[in-house]
Amino acid sequence: MRVELYNTITELEGVSVQGAAALVIDVLRATSTLTEALANGALAVYPVLSAEEAVRIANSLGRDECIVCGERNGLPIEGFDLGNSPREFTPDAVDRRKLVMTTTNGTRAFIAAQDADRVVAASFLNLSAAAAAVEDAERVVIVCAGKEDRFSFDDTLCGGHLIEKLRASGDRELNDGALAARALARSNKPSAKIFGQVAAGRALASIGLEPDLAFCAQVDRHELAPVMVDRVIRAGG
Amino acid sequence: MRVELYNTITELEGVSVQGAAALVIDVLRATSTLTEALANGALAVYPVLSAEEAVRIANSLGRDECIVCGERNGLPIEGFDLGNSPREFTPDAVDRRKLVMTTTNGTRAFIAAQDADRVVAASFLNLSAAAAAVEDAERVVIVCAGKEDRFSFDDTLCGGHLIEKLRASGDRELNDGALAARALARSNKPSAKIFGQVAAGRALASIGLEPDLAFCAQVDRHELAPVMVDRVIRAGG
Repeated sequence: MRVELYNTITELEGVSVQGAAALVIDVLRATSTLTEALANGALAVYPVLSAEEAVRIANSLGRDECIVCGERNGLPIEGFDLGNSPREFTPDAVDRRKLVMTTTNGTRAFIAAQDADRVVAASFLNLSAAAAAVEDAERVVIVCAGKEDRFSFDDTLCGGHLIEKLRASGDRELNDGALAARALARSNKPSAKIFGQVAAGRALASIGLEPDLAFCAQVDRHELAPVMVDRVIRAGG
Repeated sequence: MRVELYNTITELEGVSVQGAAALVIDVLRATSTLTEALANGALAVYPVLSAEEAVRIANSLGRDECIVCGERNGLPIEGFDLGNSPREFTPDAVDRRKLVMTTTNGTRAFIAAQDADRVVAASFLNLSAAAAAVEDAERVVIVCAGKEDRFSFDDTLCGGHLIEKLRASGDRELNDGALAARALARSNKPSAKIFGQVAAGRALASIGLEPDLAFCAQVDRHELAPVMVDRVIRAGG
């Protein structure tokens, strides 16, 4: 197996993902939130880039069946049903609903990965299941959403732990990003404390969303590997 | 002290370096080579982007006093005096000469950092001296050249070891890149073996330049902190 990890979406530019299995990571918070939502009964997640696109897609799907959600600078968007805190996406809130989600970095990462043979959403919440979903691939491309095109500690740390989960699968060839992420994972576990030291976590804490850090640091809360097909993410299987 | 590390030149876009001290790193090989050259008696290094610019500057400085050097895809450029292997830059070759150097990634990193209050060239060859040269700064920006706008393990590893060298200086605030690079440094030392596993090192080995890897992995071979002023790099002091 060849494993490549890219710390930002920009780093992935010029790299073909065709034929590969892609793992898309936005720990704080897009992939954590959509994993939680799908585990709690949501039917599908539609990742979109803009608030306008979100409203348009929700109207075309049937506005009453949809939850329109997402954030700008971490905060909910006016007129939307929910923000992007995984704690909001309870079974009561999302069961049997379609989610139209716009986020700053996460959506861009899914779009960047969309030409892969398989596109799987990964977070600490579904770490083992996400790794298992690409275990048979010859080439795995890990796409870290990053934060405004910069390295994000939490995303690369999750990428490193995914690589560690893949370790049973024999000989592997790692690119520079994957080698470094694996080293990072071997010396760091996810925790609210460490997320509190990184840019994405500090930004959330500064707007009163510190409980999201501990939530998103939970490992293997769900046995679920969400898969994106034709720009729609479903529970997989 | 606040320490920021950027893994690629692209990551630095939009970040002002004014008022900061910058450490520029291109381990394989621009900053290793220019450190070796200045330690061996070269008067100055002029980093330039293109072969054409190199020839033009050498002619304006006096072609006979200059050594025109550099690489494209690791190999020397036709008509140039030297390539970019540090092993070529012996005292016999460079003493009292001016070097006009064009490299793929290193030159771009120097240009990206040029608005800083102080721009210091760093490599493993001059690790302690480079760290000491910014020890009094309130803000240190570490610019990793990377490889074609992608994460380069060797550059970020060197950045992490520089941060470790700075550790005596009291309270520090680290950005995400610096936090991760420090973790990488705590679990990895530079060596020909590890450089042989990364993209830049594999590329050199594939064109017969494997001895450069062990050369560039030497720690503190020189007590020298090259400083760039007005686009000219000198031995500093």
